Amino acid sequence: MTRKLVYRFEPDKAEGRAEWKELLGGKGANLAEMANMGIPVPPGFTITTEACVDYLRASEFPEGLLDSIGESLRWLEQRTRREFGSVSNPLLVSVRSGARSSMPGMMDTILDLGLNDETVVGLAKQSQSERFAFDAYRRLLTMFGDVVLGIDRELFDGPLSVARRSVARQKRLSVPDDDETLARAVPDSVLGVAELKQVVQEYKRIILQHTGKPFPKDPYAQLEAAVRAVFDSWKNPRAKLYRKMHDIPEEWGTAVNVQAMVFGNLGETSATGVAFTRDPSSGERRFFGEWLPNAQGEDVVAGIRTPRPLARTSESDGLSLEEAMPDSYAELMRIQSKLEHRFRDMQDIEFTIEAGQLFLLQTRNGKRSARASVRIAVDMVEEGLLHPDEAILRVDPERLSELLFPAIDPAASVSAVGRGIAASPGAVCGKAVFSAEDAEAYAGRGEAVILVRIETSPEDLHGMKAARGILTARGGATSHAAVVARGMGRPCVAGCSALHVDYQAGQAFVHGASGDIIATIKHGDSITIDGSSGRVYLGQVPTVDAKLGPEMETLLKWTERVSRMRVRANADTPEQAEKALSFGAYGIGLCRTEHMFFNDERIAAVREMILARDTVAREKALAKLLPFQTEDFAGLFRVMRGRPVNIRLLDPPLHEFLPHDKRQIADLAATMGVSVADVERKVAELYEFNPMLGHRGVRLGITFKEIPAMQVRAILEAACTVRNEGHEVLPEIMIPLAFSVGELRAMRAIIDEVAADVFKKRGFEVHFKVGTMIELPRAALLADQLAEQAEFFSFGTNDLTQTTLGISRDDSGSFLPVYVERGILRDDPFVTLDTEGVGELVRIAVEKGRIARPEAHFGVCGEHGGDPKSIEFCEAIGLNYVSCSPFRVPIARVAAAQASLRRTRKYWR
Amino acid sequence: MTRKLVYRFEPDKAEGRAEWKELLGGKGANLAEMANMGIPVPPGFTITTEACVDYLRASEFPEGLLDSIGESLRWLEQRTRREFGSVSNPLLVSVRSGARSSMPGMMDTILDLGLNDETVVGLAKQSQSERFAFDAYRRLLTMFGDVVLGIDRELFDGPLSVARRSVARQKRLSVPDDDETLARAVPDSVLGVAELKQVVQEYKRIILQHTGKPFPKDPYAQLEAAVRAVFDSWKNPRAKLYRKMHDIPEEWGTAVNVQAMVFGNLGETSATGVAFTRDPSSGERRFFGEWLPNAQGEDVVAGIRTPRPLARTSESDGLSLEEAMPDSYAELMRIQSKLEHRFRDMQDIEFTIEAGQLFLLQTRNGKRSARASVRIAVDMVEEGLLHPDEAILRVDPERLSELLFPAIDPAASVSAVGRGIAASPGAVCGKAVFSAEDAEAYAGRGEAVILVRIETSPEDLHGMKAARGILTARGGATSHAAVVARGMGRPCVAGCSALHVDYQAGQAFVHGASGDIIATIKHGDSITIDGSSGRVYLGQVPTVDAKLGPEMETLLKWTERVSRMRVRANADTPEQAEKALSFGAYGIGLCRTEHMFFNDERIAAVREMILARDTVAREKALAKLLPFQTEDFAGLFRVMRGRPVNIRLLDPPLHEFLPHDKRQIADLAATMGVSVADVERKVAELYEFNPMLGHRGVRLGITFKEIPAMQVRAILEAACTVRNEGHEVLPEIMIPLAFSVGELRAMRAIIDEVAADVFKKRGFEVHFKVGTMIELPRAALLADQLAEQAEFFSFGTNDLTQTTLGISRDDSGSFLPVYVERGILRDDPFVTLDTEGVGELVRIAVEKGRIARPEAHFGVCGEHGGDPKSIEFCEAIGLNYVSCSPFRVPIARVAAAQASLRRTRKYWR
Repeated sequence: MTRKLVYRFEPDKAEGRAEWKELLGGKGANLAEMANMGIPVPPGFTITTEACVDYLRASEFPEGLLDSIGESLRWLEQRTRREFGSVSNPLLVSVRSGARSSMPGMMDTILDLGLNDETVVGLAKQSQSERFAFDAYRRLLTMFGDVVLGIDRELFDGPLSVARRSVARQKRLSVPDDDETLARAVPDSVLGVAELKQVVQEYKRIILQHTGKPFPKDPYAQLEAAVRAVFDSWKNPRAKLYRKMHDIPEEWGTAVNVQAMVFGNLGETSATGVAFTRDPSSGERRFFGEWLPNAQGEDVVAGIRTPRPLARTSESDGLSLEEAMPDSYAELMRIQSKLEHRFRDMQDIEFTIEAGQLFLLQTRNGKRSARASVRIAVDMVEEGLLHPDEAILRVDPERLSELLFPAIDPAASVSAVGRGIAASPGAVCGKAVFSAEDAEAYAGRGEAVILVRIETSPEDLHGMKAARGILTARGGATSHAAVVARGMGRPCVAGCSALHVDYQAGQAFVHGASGDIIATIKHGDSITIDGSSGRVYLGQVPTVDAKLGPEMETLLKWTERVSRMRVRANADTPEQAEKALSFGAYGIGLCRTEHMFFNDERIAAVREMILARDTVAREKALAKLLPFQTEDFAGLFRVMRGRPVNIRLLDPPLHEFLPHDKRQIADLAATMGVSVADVERKVAELYEFNPMLGHRGVRLGITFKEIPAMQVRAILEAACTVRNEGHEVLPEIMIPLAFSVGELRAMRAIIDEVAADVFKKRGFEVHFKVGTMIELPRAALLADQLAEQAEFFSFGTNDLTQTTLGISRDDSGSFLPVYVERGILRDDPFVTLDTEGVGELVRIAVEKGRIARPEAHFGVCGEHGGDPKSIEFCEAIGLNYVSCSPFRVPIARVAAAQASLRRTRKYWR
Repeated sequence: MTRKLVYRFEPDKAEGRAEWKELLGGKGANLAEMANMGIPVPPGFTITTEACVDYLRASEFPEGLLDSIGESLRWLEQRTRREFGSVSNPLLVSVRSGARSSMPGMMDTILDLGLNDETVVGLAKQSQSERFAFDAYRRLLTMFGDVVLGIDRELFDGPLSVARRSVARQKRLSVPDDDETLARAVPDSVLGVAELKQVVQEYKRIILQHTGKPFPKDPYAQLEAAVRAVFDSWKNPRAKLYRKMHDIPEEWGTAVNVQAMVFGNLGETSATGVAFTRDPSSGERRFFGEWLPNAQGEDVVAGIRTPRPLARTSESDGLSLEEAMPDSYAELMRIQSKLEHRFRDMQDIEFTIEAGQLFLLQTRNGKRSARASVRIAVDMVEEGLLHPDEAILRVDPERLSELLFPAIDPAASVSAVGRGIAASPGAVCGKAVFSAEDAEAYAGRGEAVILVRIETSPEDLHGMKAARGILTARGGATSHAAVVARGMGRPCVAGCSALHVDYQAGQAFVHGASGDIIATIKHGDSITIDGSSGRVYLGQVPTVDAKLGPEMETLLKWTERVSRMRVRANADTPEQAEKALSFGAYGIGLCRTEHMFFNDERIAAVREMILARDTVAREKALAKLLPFQTEDFAGLFRVMRGRPVNIRLLDPPLHEFLPHDKRQIADLAATMGVSVADVERKVAELYEFNPMLGHRGVRLGITFKEIPAMQVRAILEAACTVRNEGHEVLPEIMIPLAFSVGELRAMRAIIDEVAADVFKKRGFEVHFKVGTMIELPRAALLADQLAEQAEFFSFGTNDLTQTTLGISRDDSGSFLPVYVERGILRDDPFVTLDTEGVGELVRIAVEKGRIARPEAHFGVCGEHGGDPKSIEFCEAIGLNYVSCSPFRVPIARVAAAQASLRRTRKYWR
């Protein structure tokens, strides 16, 4: 039995349906669905992803595919009453890729397929426009040359410029030097038949010259080559990069959609456009999109012509589709409403109007900003379209970080130098660079950059990823830059038309209303962009933290009902603790006490402690630190009011507190009243070959018990003080880097001794817990033994990853990126928990620890605690909480809720 | 029901037996056994270890113990027809400790208990010697003062010296300044009644002064305090150290033996002695021991008087027991033979002859040198006393390293400067130090030291442990130094009487036959001692490797029948491989290819490779290394002839091959024809914070695939060449530091490509295997996945220990000793495998790996592969082989055989 490799669709009758994305790709499945819903789509057929996978594996078309395509073409000829390759009545088709999940970066599409020197004449007759026909023909040659034959697209720009110049000369226009200005002065639509014919001749010559073979006139040969090219495009570098960024498996493959062409460029009653059923930036419920009269789809997204709004605007100027083609607009409104109800999500649609007749070319769930995703999800609950649990699952928690980007400080008295489209929200500052390469190079050195481009193309993808923000001179809210930036969560201002970018000179000019240059942005100058307002500023503008907004608050409220896990925050100061509380943290999961040691007054005492010759001198120095630490902890307890505050005892090796260069050492010696040689000896003595695996964590406490004794005293004194002030306190004392119960016993003895002393002096006791971090494989494997002493376990997955994989994070730059790129590791294990290795140890520890001490609680306080994928794993193995930076608390709350929902209610998702 | 806390024994009738060591301690159980065998032992009773354990836990005697002791004393009075505390006919007793396992370092013994100012008069009458009675009294006061009352033993030396001086003056002898010479000039036996009475008075005064209470005259009070002191001595520091060194559990406790006194110092028909049933140094089957007439046991072992031989010697001078007391000697010979047959092991016995009547005071399995342990075990098989499997189990494999110590090169033309007793075999060189403290300090700095002492005492234990060898001026083959050194496996020359040690001056003089000083050994001077011959040399004397000897060869042959695991060797050169083969290695378990990179010619090419700007330049440099590596491997294959040779691909980070100081960098730049800045940049670029967790192992192969490609080519070219020479070859290519199957796939692709090329050019194929090291926790946890690519697994337990415990071995000196000392870790995890943590990962890996690939083989190539305790674990979890340094192969072979025997034949041990 042969598999069905081709599925047909036409209005009211399609072989596929929306749910078959796996087989038909997103575009094909939705075309089928639209067809079944009676929505006008041009008839066509979809070649399955299975065919693609087979092709990619065997490097040849699966058996029967060509036959099926041939049969479907004949069916399509019947349906359209046209004929593929016919000179008198030619059928033209589009060939579009369509993977299971939308991949806008791939863009491998070929339109107008079926044209050759003979059929173009037929098309001219059919359309009654020779100009139209040759325009289509040169478009086909460009796309075919680029996508199928792999000829550099820029080569096709030359003949077009020659033609433009010729027209300009004919029209006695001044001819600008650069092609770009020329293209604006002489748009495609002005080119005449003679010029287009000349361009076509040149294009055929380019193809012959670069491939050694003429452009294939046989439409079937064209189609076969096009399908092959679309299949192959699955493997192109930018597609691979996109998949890596979006976690799309390599093995999916793409479907191919072959569809009868409809033309938006058949004259003034024709048009093409794209639309979102809601505002993809704000999430506001308004039909939102752009269109161009007498244009093909690619003209809208490419950003060459500035598109017009769909709906009538306040300053109505007749440019809107609503005004220009009211009937088509009305039909489009009906269709978009139907689509939203069917798909229960905001839709991103493409349409073409051919001589007054509306066709839908595509619908898909629209990409949107994080803010929009929240608003749309919450609104749709209110509209009765979604259950709150579904709304929670609709939000990509990773992308919520966008909501938490700082905004321009409203108090700052700055004025924008320019304004473009608010294409992706968030305010960000960085050095201006004008190429993707520079963006990557600067970012590689740790510098924040804003990528400034006239417009972006898929080739800029890596630079956009490296940049903190993107600014373009051209293109709208649906331009490449805007779509990709939103997908990446990078702030983006698009189509800032006052900007003139000069790549050669490495600078950009900003023109004022009068056309004068009012500012120059040189390579490396700091600029600030606000993707929420579209404003561009010179220099570094003060920003303020973002607020969550009412919809986000609503969503977060809903998460509380469904989350099993709690979310805590890693916070070292009262300010951070307050921030965490404002984001809904349940408690503090990790307070790193060493961060309190670095201010000027304290570091002197810390160094004195390290340089001490004996226990007595060390205790003296520690006594100076005690009041500081006590006040630190009291501050935290006051903010957290009875919520758990987990405090980790001193963790880093002591040499981290000593200076290492000669001058600082001399200064320290002077301050401490010891010889330079003494300080140098101590620095040398404390030197470690592998400090990560050295004398730190609990090992410090074992060898210098007076250090934890001081810290525990500070914690408990602070707890007593704040209790006396009338607040509840719940301190948790955490022992770092333990791998044996013996260490915990030794520390517990110190803690109990200090506690007895403090409580005796105070005359009352404060309840506190003692537990341990699990950050070494041995600790995980022996969690049952550690449970004898530990009332809680917190997985320090940063260090646990370093030891389990034997990778020093600081030194991993020379090989880890290669590992991720080559798929040896699926993700960067310092971002997303390595569930197979590190996760297995966590699982073992939880299993053993729970049996040994059922009432113990388990959490994660590594950076993975704020990573949604890792949080899903934490839910799966039954942790009690995750702890992350305050900033990521909302993300973790949503992720934790989603994880609970997915685990307990399998039918969602 | 009350437990029985006291067990009595008397000839032909004892309540205990030899097998009850757990309850009665070794000494008590064997006393009972001897009594049952009809051997004359003084009657007495043993207080059980259970009583001790109870006492130590509760800090008071268990209920009923004092009553039981009282009843047994009354029984003892009946048996001896004497009365405890009687003025007319006093019973005196000895109180000796006796743990389950012999602990000679403890030495807490009290003799002559029961004496006081009144009973001493009775004893004088009984013995018809007032001198004897007061001599016994002053001995009791010394021992009681030291052991029970904790008074510094040296305080008791003062009055004795006063007495000696007084006698010397009476006898008109010249009075030497130092007490030591004085004691030789005026031995105890010369002290008269008056002096002894004076000494006793002084001793009582010392006791009153230091404790505030007079010496207890009540014998029952004396006994109770003595038992308490012996119990307490279980906890003294030197006993603790001894137990740690010998793996004796803290919780055992000691038994106490209370026995009627017999006296070897009752005149010239009395004597005392110690003996071994075979030579404890060589294992030769000859009765071997020492005695002193008119002496108590402590006089023999303390080394003050030089003891006499038991058996008639060639230059017979009437000093032997055989000549002096032929009847007692004959009885002793009968008894020793009986004891050897009963205990089926070489016995160490103590005896006393009281007025011509022989008593055995103790028998126990004798401590012996490693060589003796092998010879005795093998001889006893031939004598029909043991089964070969038992003989294997009789040898402590850890101690076999003694047999492998180098000996003085017979070709060296050196002459000894002095000669003592060959107390513990092996030749060793080191710097002379004169105190245990110095020995420890020097060893702590990594220097080899020889501890030189007049004689040693338990206080010197830590210094003896730190030293490479021990040299004493006084004492025989049974002296403290000799017994302890043999136990520790340290070479020892004892009783080198030509040596005069001056602690104050920190030097030693060697006297010639004429008495002139012929050499001076200053603190820090190099000396060499040969514990096999007893010779002492100045300076560093050339040594040669040891041979195993015929008995060892026999024993190793027996191991082959019983060992399940194979033993391989870690060898990097043909020389090492030959050494390994000579020790019976089955193959090479680890060849570290990077060791081949360091000679002058090669390091230049290695550095050129590292400094290469691109792959082409790198390949060019590697091409220079290829012939070297090929010859290296060919050399190994030629030696190993078809035995497996496991070759690890390059493992260390590249910066290890670059110079780091300015001059060397400049030299390198000049040699390479690049700028200094270039070299410095590369050095800086390769710098790593934690090189242990950095860019090394398989990561090098992933990022620079031309490196493994060169190495694999060298391996397979070499294999083909040696095959062409007519030898079998079995190369195993090992990939280091992998943690994922993706890495192995990538490496396998390189290996297969190179192999195909080599075999194609050669026209034939050589079978080889590809496998991986498991040295990261993730690799162990994912062994089932790795098994897809790995045909074998070798556990690199050194690195696996570092990552599992998070301990950098290089940096562990500041805390790991504290961990071991405080018992947080039972053993140094880099010496003995941490079975709970690291071992658990190994177990998981073997379990998962075997299921995934049943034919895979598993081995250990970390240093644990040569550690007997670790080998036992390897057997338990079913590894196929262990691999260790060539030197340790015999040890590993015995350990592996023992492990197999213990696992499969539980009844041995």
